[in-house]
Amino acid sequence: MSRPSAQLKTPKGTRDWVGDDLLLRESIFKTIADVFQRHGGTPLDTPVFELTEILAGKYGEDAPRLVYDLRDQGGELCSLRFDLTVPFARWLAANAHVTHVKRYQIAKVYRRDQPAIARGRLREFHQCDFDIAGAHDPMVPDAEILCVVVEVFEALGLGVTVKINHRRILDGLFAVAGVPADKIRSISSAVDKLDKMPWGDVKTEMLDKGLSDQVADRVGEYVQRSGGVLEMLDVLKASETLAANEDVRAGIADVGLLASYLEAFGIGDAVSFDCSLARGLDYYSGLIFEVVMQAPKEPESGDRNQSSQVGSIAAGGRYDDLVGMYGKRPIPCVGISFGVDRIFTILKPPADKDAKTSSPVSRNLDVYVMAIGGKEFDGLLLERMAVTRQLWRAGIRAEYSAKVKPKPLQQFKASMGVPLAVILGPDELAAGQVRLKVFQPDAEEENDPGRLVAKDDLVEEVKRLLRGTT
Amino acid sequence: MSRPSAQLKTPKGTRDWVGDDLLLRESIFKTIADVFQRHGGTPLDTPVFELTEILAGKYGEDAPRLVYDLRDQGGELCSLRFDLTVPFARWLAANAHVTHVKRYQIAKVYRRDQPAIARGRLREFHQCDFDIAGAHDPMVPDAEILCVVVEVFEALGLGVTVKINHRRILDGLFAVAGVPADKIRSISSAVDKLDKMPWGDVKTEMLDKGLSDQVADRVGEYVQRSGGVLEMLDVLKASETLAANEDVRAGIADVGLLASYLEAFGIGDAVSFDCSLARGLDYYSGLIFEVVMQAPKEPESGDRNQSSQVGSIAAGGRYDDLVGMYGKRPIPCVGISFGVDRIFTILKPPADKDAKTSSPVSRNLDVYVMAIGGKEFDGLLLERMAVTRQLWRAGIRAEYSAKVKPKPLQQFKASMGVPLAVILGPDELAAGQVRLKVFQPDAEEENDPGRLVAKDDLVEEVKRLLRGTT
Repeated sequence: MSRPSAQLKTPKGTRDWVGDDLLLRESIFKTIADVFQRHGGTPLDTPVFELTEILAGKYGEDAPRLVYDLRDQGGELCSLRFDLTVPFARWLAANAHVTHVKRYQIAKVYRRDQPAIARGRLREFHQCDFDIAGAHDPMVPDAEILCVVVEVFEALGLGVTVKINHRRILDGLFAVAGVPADKIRSISSAVDKLDKMPWGDVKTEMLDKGLSDQVADRVGEYVQRSGGVLEMLDVLKASETLAANEDVRAGIADVGLLASYLEAFGIGDAVSFDCSLARGLDYYSGLIFEVVMQAPKEPESGDRNQSSQVGSIAAGGRYDDLVGMYGKRPIPCVGISFGVDRIFTILKPPADKDAKTSSPVSRNLDVYVMAIGGKEFDGLLLERMAVTRQLWRAGIRAEYSAKVKPKPLQQFKASMGVPLAVILGPDELAAGQVRLKVFQPDAEEENDPGRLVAKDDLVEEVKRLLRGTT
Repeated sequence: MSRPSAQLKTPKGTRDWVGDDLLLRESIFKTIADVFQRHGGTPLDTPVFELTEILAGKYGEDAPRLVYDLRDQGGELCSLRFDLTVPFARWLAANAHVTHVKRYQIAKVYRRDQPAIARGRLREFHQCDFDIAGAHDPMVPDAEILCVVVEVFEALGLGVTVKINHRRILDGLFAVAGVPADKIRSISSAVDKLDKMPWGDVKTEMLDKGLSDQVADRVGEYVQRSGGVLEMLDVLKASETLAANEDVRAGIADVGLLASYLEAFGIGDAVSFDCSLARGLDYYSGLIFEVVMQAPKEPESGDRNQSSQVGSIAAGGRYDDLVGMYGKRPIPCVGISFGVDRIFTILKPPADKDAKTSSPVSRNLDVYVMAIGGKEFDGLLLERMAVTRQLWRAGIRAEYSAKVKPKPLQQFKASMGVPLAVILGPDELAAGQVRLKVFQPDAEEENDPGRLVAKDDLVEEVKRLLRGTT
């Protein structure tokens, strides 16, 4: 009874969802799932925790600190899922009869990161993933994934830029620049910060990580290039040193093929090539991509980071070796993950102070059933129940006051926003009738008592009116 | 690379959901959510874990062993939610502006119990909860909850019995029988096993818990009674010793009121009164209820437990003191929780051996886009992409082979089960046309080449055909 109220909260980096926020979130899910289904996606649902060793060594150097583990209470050691990709790979590896699949999953994932709720960065957050698994001709599934990306943001009405790069081009660039093979992943994660830090800071990090000044500058020269896909392919091909590297050549071939497929889809303009894009996760092996909000054409204010404050809102890539890491057969995969909480932050209408004070819990009702009578009136609760049950049985959304003898005003207040009211009175009921009233939001008809309907016809009448009003 | 394949599994008591199982589960969710919405329910979503102290002391003597804790990685101590009721109570306590609400939540909960997957008993399982919070006239919300129960099982097509009891009647019975006040909860949990154990075993447990033989027999005499609600009320009222107990009297008044409301809803026959029903959870304070499958009228086999093998498939009750335990204002609540995994086990069609070998991942496609040509044929991949993108943009679910030069047979195989095919050929494309073919599942028309459609009219034609076929 005397617990401090400070405990009355959700854990750090988590939140409750209710009312308009939940409705908006669900509508984003629905929009995205529709696109996934349009592309032949089938849904998968996996447990919220996995065996700890399933997750181990899949995510990169920061992951061990960021993964939520369950307490050892005897039995298996488990951890909360960190993304939806590793559970999908585990499922593929365990189900030998699945060789080709487009699967999607919309679910919560968990990262013990520093939360920034205003920017949609939470510790419990949602991912919407679409992945294509199976051996296919090169870059055909990759192109479809990018098409899914474009269609999702078209459907959400958000202008975005899809930045792509290729792990083999990146590895080749590093090798040609003189980065030792064992430093490539770590230099790669420094380069990945170029969208948030100036070059000078990134260079310092590289020097700290043991690169010579000369090598660091050469890396800088290579990775600070970005532009249209075809244009960047020309740049890369023009350099004899780069073109001599096998990884770069293989990457160029992939991206060239991809460019022709993007052209066929008519989405080439939405995609740009960014040599600094590296992605943190260890499991990527080919094409990688990231989606950011389109920068405004003309800076509207001094804050040029405005559109990039939430960071990437979708990201993914090809991971051909992950499934094989589980010791069974390898299955090449490519996929995309949409960060719904960040998308939610962008789509959420600006806070309205008046709205804040109204209840966050709104009902969607078709009918409010009330009773009005004279002095001797007993509230007609049993009759309100019986009539409402008639409506419920017919699938109509209805409520009545839970008071035995509710006052007329209380009932009219409770019916606000509900399109129809059924009004019971002793005399009407005696004649087998009820009153049915249509609320016209903007009309002055407060004294309209509604029209009489036979009780037996009520359900049909209500259904007819609802068809008309929706 | 050499990990043992034994690790390729989900954690004990958890499972993946995909294909037909997932579709059935989602349809159960939808059916239940429709009923919740019909009753004015608003959805709430809470984090999968709560602060450990929010959960502590709410569930009963077994809970500490059964709750999943997160490992202490610094910061707050958290545990996975054990049900959806306590998170709802925490949310109510924390949101002072919410005084009355009907909320529903469909989500996974976690219990480290011994799993029995065939009977739908898992460690990660789903609950569908509907609760009415707020001060209302007595038993009006309780009656609506029971109406929700009846409507859900009507909608699912399952014949059930709703067993009710009242904590105050039970406490009164125990007191009159001579059970010491400090043993009531523990004797209560022994009594609750009467649906799974014979009276002799339950009595032994009571004696072990320190009851005298005489008191135990008196408890047995009282609690082994069950029957129709009105009939049982008469039995209780007829006993002068019981009627003299204040708790019993208060419970009888509640149940009498409830009976009249159930009558108004026309659902009195679905409800029975069972004095042995006790429910394990600590937080119930008034009416309690549990739903079991209806026993077959005539035993079909020697196994009379057949219909009760899954145990209760929904349960709930009134908990007026839980919200107040968080040190803010008290809010009386009553609610029901549907055990969807057990309902799923009952509704799932018997395993079909042939179906086992088929892929568990089925697509729902509208159109398959293919290309067929002669010897010099290049597969028309770019053209298949462009045409499919046209369909996707119009919201049509479509796929094509990811091969550059797919064989006709491969493509026809991949189109199995898809209602429409768009067939591209070099000559037709040159004339701005494609072939559109409708698959008639049972017709012998394998040689029907489809009819020619102008490429520009394709989307409209496909939409017209889909409207016709669905």
